[in-house]
Parts: sequence; structure tokens; C-alpha cells
Amino acid sequence: MAEAAANGDARRGGVPRPTNPMVTPLLTDLYQFTMAYAYWKAGKHLDRAVFDLYFRKNPFGGEFTIFGGLEECIRFIANFKFTEEEIKFLRSVMPTCEDGFFEYLSSIDCSDVEVYAIPEGYVVFPKVPLMRIEGPVAVIQLLETPFLSLVNYASLVTTNAARHRLVAGKSKNLLEFGLRRAQGPDGGISASRYSYMGGFDATSNVAAGRLFGIPIRGTHSHAFVSSFMGLDEITDKALTSSDGSSKCEDFVSLVQNWLIKIQDSSSLRGTFGETSQSELAAFTSYALAFPNSFLALVDTYDVMRSGVPNFCAVALALNDMGYKAVGIRLDSGDLAYLSVETRKFFHVIEKDFGVVGFGKMNITASNDLNEETIDALNKQGHEVDAFGIGTYLVTCYAQAALGCVFKLVEINKQPRIKLSEDVTKVSIPCKKKCYRLYGKEGYPLVDIMTGEDEPGPKIGERLLCRHPFIESKRAYVVPQHVEELLSHFTSGASIPT
Amino acid sequence: MAEAAANGDARRGGVPRPTNPMVTPLLTDLYQFTMAYAYWKAGKHLDRAVFDLYFRKNPFGGEFTIFGGLEECIRFIANFKFTEEEIKFLRSVMPTCEDGFFEYLSSIDCSDVEVYAIPEGYVVFPKVPLMRIEGPVAVIQLLETPFLSLVNYASLVTTNAARHRLVAGKSKNLLEFGLRRAQGPDGGISASRYSYMGGFDATSNVAAGRLFGIPIRGTHSHAFVSSFMGLDEITDKALTSSDGSSKCEDFVSLVQNWLIKIQDSSSLRGTFGETSQSELAAFTSYALAFPNSFLALVDTYDVMRSGVPNFCAVALALNDMGYKAVGIRLDSGDLAYLSVETRKFFHVIEKDFGVVGFGKMNITASNDLNEETIDALNKQGHEVDAFGIGTYLVTCYAQAALGCVFKLVEINKQPRIKLSEDVTKVSIPCKKKCYRLYGKEGYPLVDIMTGEDEPGPKIGERLLCRHPFIESKRAYVVPQHVEELLSHFTSGASIPT
Repeated sequence: MAEAAANGDARRGGVPRPTNPMVTPLLTDLYQFTMAYAYWKAGKHLDRAVFDLYFRKNPFGGEFTIFGGLEECIRFIANFKFTEEEIKFLRSVMPTCEDGFFEYLSSIDCSDVEVYAIPEGYVVFPKVPLMRIEGPVAVIQLLETPFLSLVNYASLVTTNAARHRLVAGKSKNLLEFGLRRAQGPDGGISASRYSYMGGFDATSNVAAGRLFGIPIRGTHSHAFVSSFMGLDEITDKALTSSDGSSKCEDFVSLVQNWLIKIQDSSSLRGTFGETSQSELAAFTSYALAFPNSFLALVDTYDVMRSGVPNFCAVALALNDMGYKAVGIRLDSGDLAYLSVETRKFFHVIEKDFGVVGFGKMNITASNDLNEETIDALNKQGHEVDAFGIGTYLVTCYAQAALGCVFKLVEINKQPRIKLSEDVTKVSIPCKKKCYRLYGKEGYPLVDIMTGEDEPGPKIGERLLCRHPFIESKRAYVVPQHVEELLSHFTSGASIPT
Repeated sequence: MAEAAANGDARRGGVPRPTNPMVTPLLTDLYQFTMAYAYWKAGKHLDRAVFDLYFRKNPFGGEFTIFGGLEECIRFIANFKFTEEEIKFLRSVMPTCEDGFFEYLSSIDCSDVEVYAIPEGYVVFPKVPLMRIEGPVAVIQLLETPFLSLVNYASLVTTNAARHRLVAGKSKNLLEFGLRRAQGPDGGISASRYSYMGGFDATSNVAAGRLFGIPIRGTHSHAFVSSFMGLDEITDKALTSSDGSSKCEDFVSLVQNWLIKIQDSSSLRGTFGETSQSELAAFTSYALAFPNSFLALVDTYDVMRSGVPNFCAVALALNDMGYKAVGIRLDSGDLAYLSVETRKFFHVIEKDFGVVGFGKMNITASNDLNEETIDALNKQGHEVDAFGIGTYLVTCYAQAALGCVFKLVEINKQPRIKLSEDVTKVSIPCKKKCYRLYGKEGYPLVDIMTGEDEPGPKIGERLLCRHPFIESKRAYVVPQHVEELLSHFTSGASIPT
């Protein structure tokens, strides 16, 4: 736990440490250290190297990716320093290495490392470097694994969230509910953070809400419902009205009376019989605890024959006391059908009892939702206002990894290439500049790469853009606006936002 | 970063804190707190509840799961306590809640929580609780999300590792190389830990090696190879022999001479021409740095026409100096074919130059390996001794989540059930005992659950075992050995091993 203690000191030189205290210079592959030693032995460790961090293919069979993880990379290099305990451990792992190497390791930080990066949250495309990292080759190699570890999942889940937003549409509320199914605790925390970056509205994850200022949402589970036996468990039955002007001494009876009225209403008579008293007790208790934000999970027993009527009875009782209930959550069954039937029920209540707005009550849906199921719901027609999405979002179930790589493109100003029989795996050598070209309407047209010393594209000048590997992919473009994509960061830089 | 600081104190009451300092009581869903408040308001928060943690279906279309994550759960409850900052944050999230509730939260720990769990690392099956958790309902609900977060991925990746071990066979070395593609930093660290639990031999992840005492492996990457221009970059060319008795002043020339001998050998003449000098320089440098553990990545340029001949030249030069090279790594191309051709090459070297054992040189393969590709390699025939597995192992690509759930089965000694139209989602009520029954040969036959107060199975007595939902699945068993599966842990317990 030495890392934790070390990281308890929250920042060095003004830049906070990585969010997860486990992100230390040891969080890398052993071969980065064995290579560093071989470079050192060969006197090459200070050779100036340029690496590109990029991916080869958009995830999820899609046409775009969103870049996440940059801030954590900058935090990492800004605080990069081995502790004595870490050096001691490395000595034990590499016992044949000379002392001088460990003295060198002890001395290094990232003050001579320069990062050029596309802004976090930008749409990005294959082959174009998200980051260009320059510095002494031995140091840059040590950064490869942590950088990839910090960028790959962050970008993947941000992209996944954005895809869910696209399919759900702008008007829906999207809630990230994935902590329990995420790949470990900080898989969950990162998922919350980067889902928010990708367009979600809120998370259920309290720790992530605290760390990143994300709105937090949540009400109750099935266990809460089934933990109640019946209404006689409720001992404190009093509820003060919303404006404080009156007090209902027996809110339970108020709820029970409303349930009878609903059962007897001409439009609803016969649509349901006796509802679950366990559920009614749970809803009533929850409303007594949170009269201002009553949202009930209605599928523990039977949505239309128990959950929705029970919810309406409690919501109408709250209405009598000046409170406006929020709505319901569906967590199983045919969500399209149930949401439509529930909406109808709400409209009947609004009409029969003259409660303006009751028909617009919020309907949240959860239960293994993903892009495809939301798309299917859209096609079927539904009345869902908010989607709670867990497993498929946070684990990126449709494609659980983004394949960012970190390739040497130049050393001591000499271009370097990695060959492969698979042309998509050939690296593009040389230090590059990257530009996003915009057209007349202000929309981006294409991202291009040039050599470091080549002249950049000029506004209004026709330019031939060529695909690096596919001869037939080429196009003339006349940019109306040119954006240089890579911004400069050093280990002393302030955090990009 | 307050958590990190708090967690810098490594243990409380003898049990270490969770490995990841981000695992705090706030790492849970908001609804656990809103429910806790509603329980507290209703005076039900101390009701004695029993929850089962279990999964419904084995992952990867398989027939078994391996339970991981228990130790972290015990660490979590042993150190469960809210900090003042955490309480302050919760007040800001739930501003309508009464002060008394936050005083209650401040007071709680897990001293009245009891956990009954199957040993970590055991093979486990659907529906049988991995853990039974008993205690005050409000406290147990707070544990739901962190427990699931700690168990789901741990069990999934342990199972995935075990499946890779089964397909690779006992004789192969399995190396976990997944940190860069894992779902975030502790996805990587957990993957290393639980892959080792599932039967892997080593990891590339230095931090995980340090935290959990896992053997660490690694040599060099493509970037190391392409960072060298040629042999003239090597300035310190001397190598002392393995026994210290002699010194070769120009190891580079020794390598070059061996390369010429290989090129000119009657069996190999014409199979390759000029090899990459960049690669030869990299291999020679690496050998000078690690003469005792020389393993070379041979596919940067061309495996059979450059990588393998270059490796052999360096290995033979090392042999002259009394060192035994380890072998090669293949990271692209047709691994079956290349491993077979490489093995032939090694055998020719052994025969032509009389170097005993050269034919048995280690061949490691990597590059997007998984269960299916290893199975395909087995069917094709290959000469691989060790597999380095990353993405597919650590992200559990074939199924990125295990669906463990946490269901209320009893409260105040009353059985509780969650109904569902989907029979597989119906919870099995009541506090249970779980037994593993073994047959004559010592192999386990079946796991069974009984009610807490039912008599357990007896050795030698015929017992009718019935599937809880599928009437036709039943069998008579005469156990020769009965193992009670759930062991008792409390928050003051020592860590299970």
C-alpha cells in the first residue's frame, strides 16, 4: 500500500496525481524496464524518440471514436517519479542489472517529455495520432503501457456512451447504472466519468459523482420492496404538506383511500384486483422518506396489476399534500408494451381525477439495455423518458477493447517504421502534424496528416488529400477553416479541460 | 483524493484495506443510500436481512465458473467506515434527509455483518450462493454494489484464465500480457491477479507482480528493434563469459561471424539473404544487457528471412561465452507455420553446429490469442511453448460481464422472493446451506442447497437431488464425502487464503 500513501499527497507541481492511486510508474509491462536497461547499457537511453499513439479501426463497427483519457496521462507524467521502495522492488526483479541503471531510474522524471495531443472529448479517426509523445527513448517506453491503459478504455467507453446517446436521441435522459457489472472498481468509476463525457446525464455511482461532479441518481431496488411485509410495519405515518401549512397524521390511510378510488374508477374498474401490500408499504415508506422525489420501481410483483396502481395511489396521496411524484422505473418484461400501458394508465388518472400533468409522469426503463434494444424500442414505439444503462455500456460488451497502439515513428530525427504482412498494421513513419479541415457550412470535412516540416493546408486553397494506404481514397478539398489538432503539453502543464 | 490518504493507513483491526484505495463505502449506487434512509425513517434499518450473492448462468457458454474476489470483500467490510468528508458529501447529495440519519451512517461499521462464503478459487455453479450475507438490512444494502463490483469481474477473468489453461494444456506456459488493453488501470491489475489464480504462470504487469507476488515476464518490443539503425551504434562491445573466466572484447564481431556461418551452412544456404542490421543490432544489444535471459522478438521485419537467423547468430555467440539463450517470440503472421519453421531452423542449427539443446529453444507466441485461436493452433499442429495472451483474456472479450446478483432471501426470519415472468430470474427464498457431494472416486458429483434447518446430506445415504426449477432434472446420489461449502467470516476475520 506504499503507493496509496505516496499518492495521498494529492499533487506535485500544481498538477494533481492520477485519480486512481494505483497508477504509478510500476503500472507498466516489465519489458519497458528490460528495454530501458538495454538502452542504458548501449548508451542509447537519451536518444530522442517520437512515438505516435493511435488506433487502427473504429470500435463497434462504427465510423467514429471519441478520445478520452488525456487528462489522466498528463497527471501521470506530471507526477512521474519512482519511490525508493519501487526501485528496490525493480532491483529484485532484475537482479543482474548494474547499480548505475537503478540510479538512473531514480533520477528520471518527465521534465524532458513533450506530449502533443488532440483535445479530450474530440471525435477522432483511425491512424491519426491522438497523442505524439517525444523524449528520451528509455523514458517514453516506460510511458507506453500506462498511456495505453489510460486511453484505451476511456476512449472506448466515451465512444460507446456517445453511440447510446445518438440512438436514444437528445430528448431522453440517459443514466449510467453499471458499477456492479463493470470490470472492477475503477472500471466502474471510469465508466461513470467517461459516459458523462460521452453524453450521459447522470450516474448511480456515488464515488464517481463525488470525484468528477457528475449528477447522481437512484431510488430503490426490488429488495427494498420485498423487505416490507405490509402497511402495519409503518409506524410513523405523518406527513407535513409541501408548503408546511398542514400535516396529514395518517398518510397510510390517505394512500389506501386513493387505491380504493382508483380501483373503483369507471375507466379502470376490473383492470386490476388486489395489489401487493408488501409493495404498497414499500412505496408508502419511500414516499414518506422522499416526498419531493418519489420514483418507484414497479416490477417486483406485477407491473400493471400491482406496481402501477400502487404507485398511482401513493402519487395521488402525495399530490393531496402538495408534492409532485417523479415517476416509475420498469426493470423487466416488454418495456415498449409496459411503458405504453403505463402511460395510458397515467392519462386515465389525470382525466378521471383531474390531476393536471399526471399523464406526463416520468417513465424510466432499465434491464440489459443497449444500442440495439433502444433502437428496437424506438421502432416498436414506447413511452420511456429515461434509460438506465449498465452492463452493455460500461463493459462495452459489443467490443470490449479498443486497440490503441504506441509506435516509434522517429529516433534522433530518423524516421522509423514497423513493417507487417498485414498492411493495416504497418506504422506510418515520421513526426507528423495533424489538421482538421472544415467546409463552408462549418462542418469538418477531413483530418489530414503532414510531415513536421511540410507546409500546412491553407484556407481557400485546393488540396489533394490522399489515404496513406488505399490509393483510390483521395479527394480534393478547399478548406474554409483549418484547425491544428495536436496541442502541446509538458509535464509542467496545467490540466487540459 | 481524501480516500487515498485515508487508505494510506494500510489496515484496520489486522485486516488490510482493499487493494485499490478507490474502494470506499461511497463506491456504491446512490439508491443504496436512499433506501438506507427510507429504512431508517421507517425504523426498519436494523431488521435482520439475509442476502444471497449468486449468478444465473455460467459465462462463455461454459459449464463452470471459478469464484474470485472474496478476499477483497472481506477487506472491504473489515475496514468499512465513513469518513467525515464522505458524510458531508452525502449530506449534499441528499439534502432533504434528517440529521439523525447521517449520525447513524457515521456510526456504522460491519461488526454485525456475517458473511458465509465458498472458498475463493473454487469451481462454482449457477444459483448456488457464492456468498450469503447477513446483518442489518440498511448496512447490507450498502454492501451490494461494492461486493458485486469486486466479485463479478474477478470471477469472470479467473474463469476465463482457467478456460485458456484447459485449451492450452498443462505443459504450456501461459503469460498474461493484457495491461494495455484492460478496462482501466485496476482492470489490468485485477486481470493479472485473477489470471494467476485461474492458472496462468506469469504476468507482464510489474505493479501486479509487486502487489500479489506473481512472477513477472518481459523482454522487448518492436520499437526496441526499430530504434536501432545498425551495429555501429553499439559502443561497449565486451562480454564476460558466464563463468567469469574469459572476456570477449568484440561480441558484435562474434555475432557477425556466426551469422556468416549460418548463411553458409549447407542446410540453410539460400533460405535467407541479408538480414536486417537494425534488428541484429537490437538483438546484440539486448544480449549484452541480458546474456542470461536472451529472448528476442523476431517479427519486426521478416521472421524467417531476418528475425530467426539474427536470433540464432546472437544465441550461438552467447553459447560460445557459456550463456544459454532462452528463445524467441512471434507476434504476427501464421503462428502455427512460423513456429514449425522456426523449430526446424533450430534443429538444423543444433545438428550443423553441434549445439546440444538448441532445437528445444523456447518459442513464445502472442498477437490477439484466445481460446479459439489456441484450439485452432492445436489442431493445425504447432511448436509453441508459451502463449502470451492479452486483450481476449483480460477484457473477457467473449463475454465481458458476469451477471452476479444480490437478492434478499429472508428478513426477520421471513422468507422473501423476487418474482419474474422469466423463471430464471425468480429468486430462491430462505436462508440456505450448501453442500458439495463427492462420489467413490473422490470427484465431486453435485452441489445441493437445503434450508437452514433441514438435516444435511449423510455419507452413504441415498439422497434425491432436485433442480429448483426444472422438474425433470433430478437424480439419486449416494455421497461418499460431504463438504459444507459456505464458511463463516466476520468483519474481524482474518483473510481467507
